[in-house]
Amino acid sequence: MKILGASKLFCCDEKFSIIDNGGVVFEGGKILDFATFETLKAKYPQAKASFYPESVLLPALSNPHIHFEFSNNKTTLVYGDFGEWLDSVIEKREGLFEDLQNSIQREIDNTLKSGIASVGAISSYGFDIAPLSSSPLRVQLFNEAIGSNPALIDALYSNLLARLQESDNHSSERFYPALSIHSPYSTHKLLAQKVAELAKERDLLLSVHFLESKHELEWLNHSSGFFKSFFTKHFGNPNATSTLTPSEFLSLLEGNKALFVHCLFADTPLLEQIHSLGGKIISSPRSNRLLNNAYLDLDRLKSIGLPTILSTDGLSSNFSLSLLDELRYTLFAYPQYSPNEFAKELVLGVTKHSNQALGFNGGEIAIGKDADLALFDIEGISQSSQEALSFILHSQKAQELYINGIREYANDF
Amino acid sequence: MKILGASKLFCCDEKFSIIDNGGVVFEGGKILDFATFETLKAKYPQAKASFYPESVLLPALSNPHIHFEFSNNKTTLVYGDFGEWLDSVIEKREGLFEDLQNSIQREIDNTLKSGIASVGAISSYGFDIAPLSSSPLRVQLFNEAIGSNPALIDALYSNLLARLQESDNHSSERFYPALSIHSPYSTHKLLAQKVAELAKERDLLLSVHFLESKHELEWLNHSSGFFKSFFTKHFGNPNATSTLTPSEFLSLLEGNKALFVHCLFADTPLLEQIHSLGGKIISSPRSNRLLNNAYLDLDRLKSIGLPTILSTDGLSSNFSLSLLDELRYTLFAYPQYSPNEFAKELVLGVTKHSNQALGFNGGEIAIGKDADLALFDIEGISQSSQEALSFILHSQKAQELYINGIREYANDF
Repeated sequence: MKILGASKLFCCDEKFSIIDNGGVVFEGGKILDFATFETLKAKYPQAKASFYPESVLLPALSNPHIHFEFSNNKTTLVYGDFGEWLDSVIEKREGLFEDLQNSIQREIDNTLKSGIASVGAISSYGFDIAPLSSSPLRVQLFNEAIGSNPALIDALYSNLLARLQESDNHSSERFYPALSIHSPYSTHKLLAQKVAELAKERDLLLSVHFLESKHELEWLNHSSGFFKSFFTKHFGNPNATSTLTPSEFLSLLEGNKALFVHCLFADTPLLEQIHSLGGKIISSPRSNRLLNNAYLDLDRLKSIGLPTILSTDGLSSNFSLSLLDELRYTLFAYPQYSPNEFAKELVLGVTKHSNQALGFNGGEIAIGKDADLALFDIEGISQSSQEALSFILHSQKAQELYINGIREYANDF
Repeated sequence: MKILGASKLFCCDEKFSIIDNGGVVFEGGKILDFATFETLKAKYPQAKASFYPESVLLPALSNPHIHFEFSNNKTTLVYGDFGEWLDSVIEKREGLFEDLQNSIQREIDNTLKSGIASVGAISSYGFDIAPLSSSPLRVQLFNEAIGSNPALIDALYSNLLARLQESDNHSSERFYPALSIHSPYSTHKLLAQKVAELAKERDLLLSVHFLESKHELEWLNHSSGFFKSFFTKHFGNPNATSTLTPSEFLSLLEGNKALFVHCLFADTPLLEQIHSLGGKIISSPRSNRLLNNAYLDLDRLKSIGLPTILSTDGLSSNFSLSLLDELRYTLFAYPQYSPNEFAKELVLGVTKHSNQALGFNGGEIAIGKDADLALFDIEGISQSSQEALSFILHSQKAQELYINGIREYANDF
C-alpha cells in the first residue's frame, strides 16, 4: 500500500475537481482511496507515503492514436496538403523503415517520459508488437487492414490474421490485441466488412481514420479528385471507384466499438451517426494543421454530446509524441476559448476521455480505478489560481509515472 | 577571417533564398561574402573554415519586444482577460521582483541559447540595464514612461531621464539607449508628448504598446469600460478620462521612429496611419492568445504593406522567451496558411524584419551586414524539401551563436 501526494491533485472527474495537498492510496494496481494527503496518512498509517511539493498529481495520460512504426520521419515527408503528403509516404516508405526498432524504442521511452501510461497504437506491419508488448505501457494494439484491390482481399486478410495471432501471443493484462480498418478510401468494402465482423465476434476495439482530408470526402462521394490520380499513379488503376459513401462506411460498423480518428471533414449528420454508433472521435490537432491546414470544430462535437479527445498521431505527421506538447499547441490552436476553462477540457481529453475511449479503467482519480498516475514538478503551482492552464503551459516531462501501481519511470532513473 | 558553412544557408532575403552547402565569410564583425562553402574555401584560402553537416546557418534572431524585468512570473499572473491580468499585475507586482537579478540573468542566457543576438527590451524600472549592458546581446533598451496622473508628470519624467542617463552611461556598440511610452491608456498625453519629443531630439527609437485589448479601445474612444473601474480601484480616481483617442496618440508620434506592439484591436485606418508614420508593428502571438484570446490579422497587415514581425513579450504573459517556440506556436496559430510558405514569412519575421525594426544592421546574409549568425543542428535537414518548415518544427536550441563575428554561445560551452 502506497500513498502519493502533491500540492495539487487533479481528479479528472467531469467537474475537474482539484484537491489542494491531495493524495491517492493504491494497492494491487488499484486506487483504494483519495483525499488530502494528511487525511490519508492518518487513515492508512501502514502505507508508505511520499509527498511532492510544487507538483501536480493526476491520472497518467492516454494517447489513443499513435503510429510507432513511423517514428523515423523527421524531414522526409512533405506537409501542407494531404495528397502531397500521401504521395511522399508512398514514394519514401522504404527509407522510413531503416533501423526502425531503435526509433520505436526511443519513442516508447519518450512516451513514458511525457507521463503517458496507455496508448492506442496503429500497427500497419506488426513491427511494433514485440517492443510494445515488452514495454510497461498499457496498449490497445490496432492491427491494421488496408487495400482497395478486390483481387488481394483474401491475401490481405490472411496477413491481418497472422499479425492478430502474433498480438494474441503477446496478450497480457497490459497488452490488448485490437483491429483497425485504415480508412474508407483505402480499404475495399469487402475487406472492411470482414474486419468489422471479426472485431464484433471477438469483441475487439476498432480504430479507423475517417474523413481526414477534403480529398477523401470527394473520393467517397464522387470517386473523383486527388484519389482518382492517386490510384492511377501508384496502383495503375485508372478505373478505381470508391466502394462506399461515408455514411455506408459508418453503417458497416453498426455493433462495433470504434474510434474515429480525425473526422475533420465530417458534417454534422455524419458526426451524429458516429455518436449513435457509440463511436468516439479522436483529434490530432498538430497533424491536422500540418496535413490539412485545419482544426476540428470542437463546438460542433460538443453540440452533439461528444467530448474532446486528443492524440498525437505518429511522427509521420508530427514533431513529437508528447501529449503535453499536443495539449499546449491545442490551447493555442483554439484562441477563442477561455484559456483556463479550455485547459480543463484538454486535460480531460488526454486522461478521462481518452482512457475511456481505449476501454481501459483509468484516466480518473476514483476508487477502484487503475493506479496509472503521473507526477509533474511545476514550480509555483501551489500559488496558481489557474491550475489546469499552469499545468499545460509548464509541464515538460513527468517526474514519476506509475502504471498499475508500479513506478515505471522517474526523472532520476 | 572566418568561414562558417552548413548544409542549408538561409539568406533571409525577401525571396527566402537558400544555398545548399552554403557558407558565410566574415571579419571585423561584418559579412564579407557568401556563396557555397566550397567556393568560399577556394576564394579565401587564408580563412579558418568550419562546416556543419545536417545544420542550418542563418542570421541570428532578433526579439524586438521583451520585458526581462518580469522574468519571475510563472504561475502568479492571471490569464484569460487583459483586465484580470492587469489587476493581477498591480496586486502582485511586489512579489514579482524578489531575487530578480538571477531571473534576468537566466533569461539572458536562455535568449542566447535560442539563437537570439539582439533584443528590444522594455525597461520599466532600470533593473535590466546593468545585466543587459554586460551581456553579449545587441540591445535597444527602451526606458519606459508610464503614468496618467497629471500632478506626477514632472516627477515621472525626471525618473525617466535618470534611467535614460544610466543607459547612456552604459551605451556601447552593442547597447543603445531608447525610449518607450507604455501605452496611450496608461500614459498622460503631456507625458507622452515629452517622451516623443525627447526621442525625436535625440533620434532614439521608441516603443509603445498599442491597442492590445478591447478594453483599451473602449477607454481611448469612450473613457468607459474596464479602465473606468481600474483607475477607480487602483488609483482612487473615479473621474479619470482618456486624454487621447487612438488616432490622436498616433499623431503625437509624427516624426518618431517607433515600434507599435500588439495592435490587436487597431482597425485598418489606424494600421494605415501607423504605416504612414513609418512605424513597424510587432506581434506576440502567444501573449495575445493568453491575455486577449485573439491573434493579429496578418492578412490585413499584408494588404497595407506591413510585414509580420514576431516577439515573445515577457514571461509576464508567456511561458518561454524562445523565439523558436514563438515561431512554432505561431505556425499552429494560423492554420489557414500553407505551412512551408508561412514558415518562410515567420523566419523573416524574427530575422530580417525584426532586426530592421530594431534599427540594427543584421538579420540578413548580405555583404556588409553584421556577422550576427546562428547555427542549428537539425538531423535530416539536408534531405528536406521544406527547409523553413523543418527548421521551425525541429529547432530547439542553437548549436552556436555569433554576435558581431564573435562566438558568444555554443551548445558545448
